[in-house]
Amino acid sequence: MANETIDKLRVNGERLWQSLMELAEIGATPKGGVCRLALTDLDKLGRDLVIKWAKEAGMTVTVDKIGNGFLRRAGKNNDLPPIVTGSHIDTQPTGGKFDGNYGVLAGLEVVRTLNDHGIQTEAPIEVAFWTNEEGSRFVPVMMGSGVFAKAFSLETAYAATDADGHSVQAELERIGYVGDEEPGDHPIGAYFETHIEQGPVLEDNDVVIGVVPGVLGIRWYDCTVTGMEAHAGPTPMALRKDAMQVAAKLIQEVVAIAHRHEPHGRGTVGNVSVHPNSRNVIPGQVKFSVDLRNSTNELVDAMDADLRNVIANVQRDSGLPIELEVVSEYAATPFHEECVTAVQGAAEKLGYSNMPVVSGAGHDAIYMARLAPAGMIFIPCKDGISHNEIEDAKPEHITAGCNVLLHAMLERAAVV
Amino acid sequence: MANETIDKLRVNGERLWQSLMELAEIGATPKGGVCRLALTDLDKLGRDLVIKWAKEAGMTVTVDKIGNGFLRRAGKNNDLPPIVTGSHIDTQPTGGKFDGNYGVLAGLEVVRTLNDHGIQTEAPIEVAFWTNEEGSRFVPVMMGSGVFAKAFSLETAYAATDADGHSVQAELERIGYVGDEEPGDHPIGAYFETHIEQGPVLEDNDVVIGVVPGVLGIRWYDCTVTGMEAHAGPTPMALRKDAMQVAAKLIQEVVAIAHRHEPHGRGTVGNVSVHPNSRNVIPGQVKFSVDLRNSTNELVDAMDADLRNVIANVQRDSGLPIELEVVSEYAATPFHEECVTAVQGAAEKLGYSNMPVVSGAGHDAIYMARLAPAGMIFIPCKDGISHNEIEDAKPEHITAGCNVLLHAMLERAAVV
Repeated sequence: MANETIDKLRVNGERLWQSLMELAEIGATPKGGVCRLALTDLDKLGRDLVIKWAKEAGMTVTVDKIGNGFLRRAGKNNDLPPIVTGSHIDTQPTGGKFDGNYGVLAGLEVVRTLNDHGIQTEAPIEVAFWTNEEGSRFVPVMMGSGVFAKAFSLETAYAATDADGHSVQAELERIGYVGDEEPGDHPIGAYFETHIEQGPVLEDNDVVIGVVPGVLGIRWYDCTVTGMEAHAGPTPMALRKDAMQVAAKLIQEVVAIAHRHEPHGRGTVGNVSVHPNSRNVIPGQVKFSVDLRNSTNELVDAMDADLRNVIANVQRDSGLPIELEVVSEYAATPFHEECVTAVQGAAEKLGYSNMPVVSGAGHDAIYMARLAPAGMIFIPCKDGISHNEIEDAKPEHITAGCNVLLHAMLERAAVV
Repeated sequence: MANETIDKLRVNGERLWQSLMELAEIGATPKGGVCRLALTDLDKLGRDLVIKWAKEAGMTVTVDKIGNGFLRRAGKNNDLPPIVTGSHIDTQPTGGKFDGNYGVLAGLEVVRTLNDHGIQTEAPIEVAFWTNEEGSRFVPVMMGSGVFAKAFSLETAYAATDADGHSVQAELERIGYVGDEEPGDHPIGAYFETHIEQGPVLEDNDVVIGVVPGVLGIRWYDCTVTGMEAHAGPTPMALRKDAMQVAAKLIQEVVAIAHRHEPHGRGTVGNVSVHPNSRNVIPGQVKFSVDLRNSTNELVDAMDADLRNVIANVQRDSGLPIELEVVSEYAATPFHEECVTAVQGAAEKLGYSNMPVVSGAGHDAIYMARLAPAGMIFIPCKDGISHNEIEDAKPEHITAGCNVLLHAMLERAAVV
């Protein structure tokens, strides 16, 4: 097929939007969002609908033992590993219509578009949906892709239970999504994922496509400052051991550390717990979370060292014991240069404004990057808001992201 | 009676200690504290025991309509208003043996000592116990003395309910402590109150007697900083509206304001509430309490102006809205010079080390100061801790405070 024809190929944005809206009816909330927690009846209905659409598009379906689905469009040479795209169907309890769902349905729209134009690819194309990406009902998050990439075992995932004690294994069986395939026994030639940015950068820069160079490394801590609780009235300032004052200083330092490690350094204190948390009692203990992120593991390590140094100084100056505990960490994930270039090239070719936007949040693509060349495509979301029923994206951006996906995948899958 | 005999008069410290320990058995907790909430069956048992002791000491008993008790030892001239001492019998849920109880039993020990030595006073002497000083079960705190001083009405107090919906009036009736006397229809010549310091100053200075010049004025605020909640990962530092960071700055300023208004300025942030309080979400709103205190109303006003100025600057610099609401305030209460001098003179005469210690906490004496010359005597408590089952005081300090009370009261009541 002539390059010129391929270059002019565009997805059907209206069809994609309609599919997104139809899927969003499953678990729709009164505020316009979606509540479709992993492995619930609603998740089953969502999966069933996507599979129905895939079959209508002539795709074959495989499900693995953790419930990951692979919707396959055959290529000319089916010995080649498939070029895969995907994301997830589950949502947060007060989630939106686009997070995850967009990545799956954009893949479906790519296939529908290829069908419309009778285009055959050399390598097969697959659309994956990964089980329990959100982690709202079961931890760990990114469960299906994590098992697939052997980040943790199938047994670990199966044993996870929700707040009511239901296990992943039992719930997968209940909704009929325990497949035959061993997770990971599924070749991947390259992996792309389209996703709303979940941040404000594209909107703030009035840019359509985010070319994602990688995902920030994350380190999570709990920090505990121990003072001495005492009456706010009878205790003079000089005789206090006010845990909140010391915590307040450290909370400001967390942000200062992020600023010292620009442009990608991020520091957040999201959770603060004060004991006894009474108006007229000087706090005896304050526990707070620290979330540090940066684009490389070395930079995260540098922020870690900065934090420990600050804590040592504040402990010495205040005389109050300060404990710091790492509660979890995720390595930084640089995406594959060829995939990043494919995304950027597709955006350029299509005439979409684009810029690099590092991903601060986790995505299934992180695990795929361990197995194959991987890349991501971001589109703007309104006010950078996600994990919220008011999550919103513009139809033209939904379409643009899908067009970039189409052309990036075609480059990797090679048109016959 | 010769001045020399009077000067040598000392209370029976062992008897006082035994009475304190016996009263502490009513509502004793496994950890060595006392739980004797206002107007419970245990409060009734405590009141009954104190009244039994008072009658054994030849005193007459009056109870008013809010349940305040007045235990009277007649003087030579019973037309003179009585010299009154007292405090409260109720405790915090995890209270100690001394808070309040000491002030009542020290008064009883004064009477027992006068009886032992057959000493008659010109004016009558009374020991008062005030209903619901702690305010743990019913608000407002210092209820009995507040009604007595007409700070609020009997009806307001009667209508107050506990967490289970029981009213003060119903509970007073149930335990049989609704008296005939109109609250406040009871002359007071002067008022003294002995109390554990509830702070660390005396212990820190190794001093036995605190001569209390007055009670700090208090202003309580709620401060709310509104930012924008967003994902900790995808949101670059420059695009954040982090309410916790702005709150952390203000929390530090509260303490700085107190330091700018030494020696009596106090600033405390005891309560902090973060929304949504999630590890990986930038806080969208933080609400925290502010407690400012100082020795005069003018100084509290100056701290208030300082706080408002700081908030205006931080709001301008951060661009985040900050709301400040006064939730309650208590005027500063200077005690009567003659009573303060009487306490200080008694401590000197008895050879006890002493120093001025302003009261940072509220006491029934605050309301009495509206009606008559009033003063307070503090003794050290272990580590400055009160409102805690581990509250502790040394027997020799218990005795010393009671000796000071004896001599201060004798000076005002005049020995015949």
